[in-house]
Amino acid sequence: MEKTKVALVGMGTVGSGVAKLLLDYGDRTARHAGRTLWLEKVLVRNPERVRAVELPDGVLTSSLEEITENSEIKVVAQLIGGLEPARTIMLQLLESGKDVVTANKALLAEHGPELFDRARELGRSIAFEAAVGGGIPIITPLSQCLTANRIESIHAILNGTSNFILDQMDTRGSSYDSAVQRAQELGYAEADPTMDVDGSDAAQKLAILAHIGMGLKIHWSEIPCRGIDSLDPSDLQYARRLGYRVKLLATAQMVEDDLELHVAPTLVKMGTPLSEVHGAYNAIRVVGDAVGKVFFHGMGAGQMPTASAVVADLIDTAVGRAAITFRTLKLWSENTPRVTPRQYDQVPGRYYLRMRVLDEPGVMAKLTDVLGRQGVSIASIIQHEEETTATDTSPAKDTNSQAIVPIVIMTHETKEGALRKAVEEFDQLECVFGGCIRMPVRE
Amino acid sequence: MEKTKVALVGMGTVGSGVAKLLLDYGDRTARHAGRTLWLEKVLVRNPERVRAVELPDGVLTSSLEEITENSEIKVVAQLIGGLEPARTIMLQLLESGKDVVTANKALLAEHGPELFDRARELGRSIAFEAAVGGGIPIITPLSQCLTANRIESIHAILNGTSNFILDQMDTRGSSYDSAVQRAQELGYAEADPTMDVDGSDAAQKLAILAHIGMGLKIHWSEIPCRGIDSLDPSDLQYARRLGYRVKLLATAQMVEDDLELHVAPTLVKMGTPLSEVHGAYNAIRVVGDAVGKVFFHGMGAGQMPTASAVVADLIDTAVGRAAITFRTLKLWSENTPRVTPRQYDQVPGRYYLRMRVLDEPGVMAKLTDVLGRQGVSIASIIQHEEETTATDTSPAKDTNSQAIVPIVIMTHETKEGALRKAVEEFDQLECVFGGCIRMPVRE
Repeated sequence: MEKTKVALVGMGTVGSGVAKLLLDYGDRTARHAGRTLWLEKVLVRNPERVRAVELPDGVLTSSLEEITENSEIKVVAQLIGGLEPARTIMLQLLESGKDVVTANKALLAEHGPELFDRARELGRSIAFEAAVGGGIPIITPLSQCLTANRIESIHAILNGTSNFILDQMDTRGSSYDSAVQRAQELGYAEADPTMDVDGSDAAQKLAILAHIGMGLKIHWSEIPCRGIDSLDPSDLQYARRLGYRVKLLATAQMVEDDLELHVAPTLVKMGTPLSEVHGAYNAIRVVGDAVGKVFFHGMGAGQMPTASAVVADLIDTAVGRAAITFRTLKLWSENTPRVTPRQYDQVPGRYYLRMRVLDEPGVMAKLTDVLGRQGVSIASIIQHEEETTATDTSPAKDTNSQAIVPIVIMTHETKEGALRKAVEEFDQLECVFGGCIRMPVRE
Repeated sequence: MEKTKVALVGMGTVGSGVAKLLLDYGDRTARHAGRTLWLEKVLVRNPERVRAVELPDGVLTSSLEEITENSEIKVVAQLIGGLEPARTIMLQLLESGKDVVTANKALLAEHGPELFDRARELGRSIAFEAAVGGGIPIITPLSQCLTANRIESIHAILNGTSNFILDQMDTRGSSYDSAVQRAQELGYAEADPTMDVDGSDAAQKLAILAHIGMGLKIHWSEIPCRGIDSLDPSDLQYARRLGYRVKLLATAQMVEDDLELHVAPTLVKMGTPLSEVHGAYNAIRVVGDAVGKVFFHGMGAGQMPTASAVVADLIDTAVGRAAITFRTLKLWSENTPRVTPRQYDQVPGRYYLRMRVLDEPGVMAKLTDVLGRQGVSIASIIQHEEETTATDTSPAKDTNSQAIVPIVIMTHETKEGALRKAVEEFDQLECVFGGCIRMPVRE
């Protein structure tokens, strides 16, 4: 049987999973690729370290040249995270004539245009199914299966860590901090989970999906983004009482020829498929004008799900499919049509607001006055019976022992800009303690 | 821009949808295929008939030779249903050097081996994303994205008509007949819906999925199959009371090296994604040993969803991806690994049983005696308070005016064979009226 020699750069969690699939289950790849994918080299920093997966002698190396200068190695899976040296290594691999597979979404979101241009100039390909949604097939469906559609919207849960944390807060009433700790214990969250919980990771993935689906070409950091780190378990309980669950939702929605685009903790109507995504799972809901709604759900991270996608890309690359897709789609090139992101201030929607206010006459009048002046109309109000004291959380203000009550307001449809201004005004009011939590609502 | 000439055979619902996408939205296919898909010919029986989609002059033809003898036409979508003349036309297209795209799952389930062998001999390809799950990407995910996995199981709702009927019976308490009528009014069911409601359509699609996913090579008619046509709205209500919904579920599940395989109305635990598939939607839940659970949901039929899949296949074929997939996967060939279907009698599971019995002493003892002798143990019993009289539905038996009560039994885990024998014995009992309904239970 024909043999295609492949190499891996990096032997962390995902790299070990890929090695395991190639070494222990070579018969599968042989069957589906019509050839053996032969693991020739694995680049690591320290070849002496004991590995979870046992590799044949001579496979481990600390020298990139052993890969770049071996003309028999055709395909390389680049599996180290971060931007550097990942970017430099990726360019060196392309320059040396390798087709590349990667799971590094940060790298693509940051340097996609440069890497893709260079690969095109060199006649090489980059495949990246594992970069978004882990093992869930989503890059291939968007780049192949749904190409007859105008993609109208993508609504997605793209960060499993945040989803796990929200699920813990929702179903167990855990505090944010203890949910984060639990996620770390289970290996779902990094020691520093900032990129997961502040929405950056989801924004990077959304930038990639919206580029493929809709031709969006902006830097991911320009996507309006709020994280889950300021939420309280009570927000999930209020949401539930109102008939919603809170999800860190990545949204790309065409409105005429503009693209509404944001990542934010969002109230998602209970009973809809997205509201039922639990634990560390991911899900992507795509609407195309021909196909209608299509929904994809599965593990968005983890060793073997991600390795599943990487090996599929290795097969696609070895058999030549990846090269065709790469050539015809012209991703991140001058030929990609541009869509304009809609001004975030102009994005319409209903909102959930929660704040903690002094329990004294006239407070509600002040709040409704602010909303009224911004043209935001109120759909419902919950004033919770539980009370705390200002000293608990707001020692800076001189209101010791005054009663404080949480207030939750659901608005009618308004604009993000009007709401933002209202929240800024709330934050200036003496009677409002701590920040005002706001979340868009999705029916 | 480069141009690939394509033709359609058939201009029914799906054909019109495909023509619409090619003619009105050519810019999309051009963008995603890197070339124009040029609709050169459409074969119809009567070119004079007025069509829903207006075609350029000279495109309609009633002569297959205008397609087979035009060497500029490279790809043909074969969109007529049934087995003949679909099979003969498909062979003629392949012989004349065309790559073929089809949505005809019956044709593939029946003549897959012959058609695929012939295409391979001729160096041609067949693409068929639209044959299963309509617009839902499932053939491509199974043939490309999940190829690093051993597929452990496929559980799927593959017939939108049945799902719509069950949903009407469940949510509106409609009778089976009125639900069928409603489905016909809305265009979800054919005038003769037999293939939809008796499970044949789902069995054909399951045969295709299990072939790609697990290497199953049996004729679809060998798949044990029960339909929804004997169900009563009360079955859906009992199921709901027990915490389940009834779905026509297609199951392919590896048990060691055997494949459990069947299509049957099944009690699906409420709250699981499959239980929440409503209306005419389809869904496929795939478990792979690396990727874990992956779930796909969308419109399984209908003009534009199916056309979306057909056009994606036209693009895949025009750019050369379909040829690679076809060549490497060797579907329906001698090279496909075989799995052995597990003896249906040996398939384990819990069961729901409903029957109508005479309300007299000793009946329950007779029923439990039968179950006991077959080694089937009872988990719970519902004896409904509502009563009917035997004359309502069973005029043949001489039991006028005797009270009849429905009894629902949930069993503990047993074997299909033991249950079948018990049901055969029930059907012989004087005190049991009409057939005994049995459905497997899926947690």
